[in-house]
Amino acid sequence: MNFLEKKICEEGIVLSSTVLKVDSFLNHQIDPRFMKEIGSEFADRFKSSNIDKILTIESSGIAPAVFAGLDMDVPVLFARKRKSLTLNEGLITASVYSYTKQEQNEISVSTKWLNPGERILIIDDFLAHGEAALGLAQLVQKAEAHVCGFGIVIEKSFQAGRQKLENQGYRVESIARIREMSPKGISFWKEESEVKSS
Amino acid sequence: MNFLEKKICEEGIVLSSTVLKVDSFLNHQIDPRFMKEIGSEFADRFKSSNIDKILTIESSGIAPAVFAGLDMDVPVLFARKRKSLTLNEGLITASVYSYTKQEQNEISVSTKWLNPGERILIIDDFLAHGEAALGLAQLVQKAEAHVCGFGIVIEKSFQAGRQKLENQGYRVESIARIREMSPKGISFWKEESEVKSS
Repeated sequence: MNFLEKKICEEGIVLSSTVLKVDSFLNHQIDPRFMKEIGSEFADRFKSSNIDKILTIESSGIAPAVFAGLDMDVPVLFARKRKSLTLNEGLITASVYSYTKQEQNEISVSTKWLNPGERILIIDDFLAHGEAALGLAQLVQKAEAHVCGFGIVIEKSFQAGRQKLENQGYRVESIARIREMSPKGISFWKEESEVKSS
Repeated sequence: MNFLEKKICEEGIVLSSTVLKVDSFLNHQIDPRFMKEIGSEFADRFKSSNIDKILTIESSGIAPAVFAGLDMDVPVLFARKRKSLTLNEGLITASVYSYTKQEQNEISVSTKWLNPGERILIIDDFLAHGEAALGLAQLVQKAEAHVCGFGIVIEKSFQAGRQKLENQGYRVESIARIREMSPKGISFWKEESEVKSS
């Protein structure tokens, strides 16, 4: 088990076969030391990709993204789910359905901070159905920048997100890949064999 | 001029006498190295305060807060502006009016992560009218925890936020204090003028 899988087993709360609560270190309370390790792991996995910028989405993607950005020495851009008064012109937008919140969101970034030809690493806290990830990829494409891959903290491998991204030719690096979960336990995918914890 | 005032002068865009856009390093694009410096500055200013935890609010407070948390080796909790499916019980809430977005928001944290007696440093990106800051302080009070002070990245000193917080006896540490601004320029409070004005 890697450091994140261990943390998920220790602190994660499985609310149902599809909902995992990790609000002790990622989604509500943030453990900065741990997020720094997560950031370094992303930096290591994408060290040969000549990344120019990291793109994430508010709010839970920000912490892992900024630590990856620090380690890789690149800026971080976060897409917004809502518009602000000071961010109102030159927007690139994409429409994203949130299964968690059961609503359609328009996500956006300023054209000013995503430029043609830039090599972008997309980072997010979870990959499930892949809606947010595909929306972020769309923003990058609309800016004529290049998606170098996805750095995902926790992947729900029993949902279709990874498959959708791989079908489009994207590289997906998830630090923890959950194969199956229930209140009784969580099992993870491994390269060659799977690891079970209960 | 300190390092943040310099950055504001170089990269900030004054949209009106009250609206400053700093989306190159704080509110949209984030400069991780610079945010690390901001975090260290907060850690330094509150090093004698025995902080147990940092409280901030999504989304732009998260980056400065996590770097302060890393430097101080304490967890960071971010209040939510909207409810999520996995964060639905045991909430402490406060009502906050956003002048920027012209709407009332209910902000919330889980009771699980704010405990009686904890010493809390509140960090946010901007202090203007003080609505968000007072809402965050209310969350801490409702949890019977203790507000040790406010760490603010940019204070609009021409608005009433600081006064409201000081009237309640809170310590306010702002890294940049804008005295006045217009598209022609920005002026900052300095130590001497602070002394004179009090």
